[in-house]
Amino acid sequence: MPKADRLSPGAVKLLQETQVANFTTLMPDGSPQITPVWVDVEPDGSQVIINTSVGRLKEKNLSRDPRVAMLVVDSANSHRWVMVRGTVVERDLVHAAAHIDKMAQKYLGQPKYPYRRGPEQRVIVRIKPHHITETGV
Amino acid sequence: MPKADRLSPGAVKLLQETQVANFTTLMPDGSPQITPVWVDVEPDGSQVIINTSVGRLKEKNLSRDPRVAMLVVDSANSHRWVMVRGTVVERDLVHAAAHIDKMAQKYLGQPKYPYRRGPEQRVIVRIKPHHITETGV
Repeated sequence: MPKADRLSPGAVKLLQETQVANFTTLMPDGSPQITPVWVDVEPDGSQVIINTSVGRLKEKNLSRDPRVAMLVVDSANSHRWVMVRGTVVERDLVHAAAHIDKMAQKYLGQPKYPYRRGPEQRVIVRIKPHHITETGV
Repeated sequence: MPKADRLSPGAVKLLQETQVANFTTLMPDGSPQITPVWVDVEPDGSQVIINTSVGRLKEKNLSRDPRVAMLVVDSANSHRWVMVRGTVVERDLVHAAAHIDKMAQKYLGQPKYPYRRGPEQRVIVRIKPHHITETGV
């Protein structure tokens, strides 16, 4: 279903699992950069959500150019995947510390995120899809 | 080991496994696009290799702008991954049909690629890394 702007229930379900997302941003020269990230999703499929730290490469990239892309492939079934091209529509600093703990609960089964690097400032990044491809979901 | 231009032996080993690569190209407007692909690698780590069809979105993208990025995450261990930013340095039409059969052997255990779409023209795409990040390999 290309060109949808909302994830289907099956795609939402994939992103609610402990899957790693492959997240692409654009470098200052416009070339692509890609990194593995934990992923969250609005239950209605309207936004995908990541949580990073202010000043990291991908955060600097998406703050400069909000055009991003994300691919989530089921680690147990490579024919089940969701691709999202979209735009960063919100950077939320206020709720980010609580949210990364929620992500730690999801991915690690731990109530507190254990990888904090000193005084890092977490940031929730909300992405509105404008082109979605879903396979096998 | 960021900024290396050659994959380490451990990274080569990861790409020699049946891992899915997450492959990013640039759309005509410069925004990123990402897709799952099978991946091959030169044993010396000097190039990563994919095989696609002429006229597909990613093939049109990389023919227009050779700047690409690829992330391979071990499907069994998300802390073991390799990221490559690089440039398409060769498009090989001549050996592509034999090569996609080699890929089918690797990924499917079948001697012939079973997904041909009529008269499609396969193409081997060779990518020279210019920035590599390796974790846990």
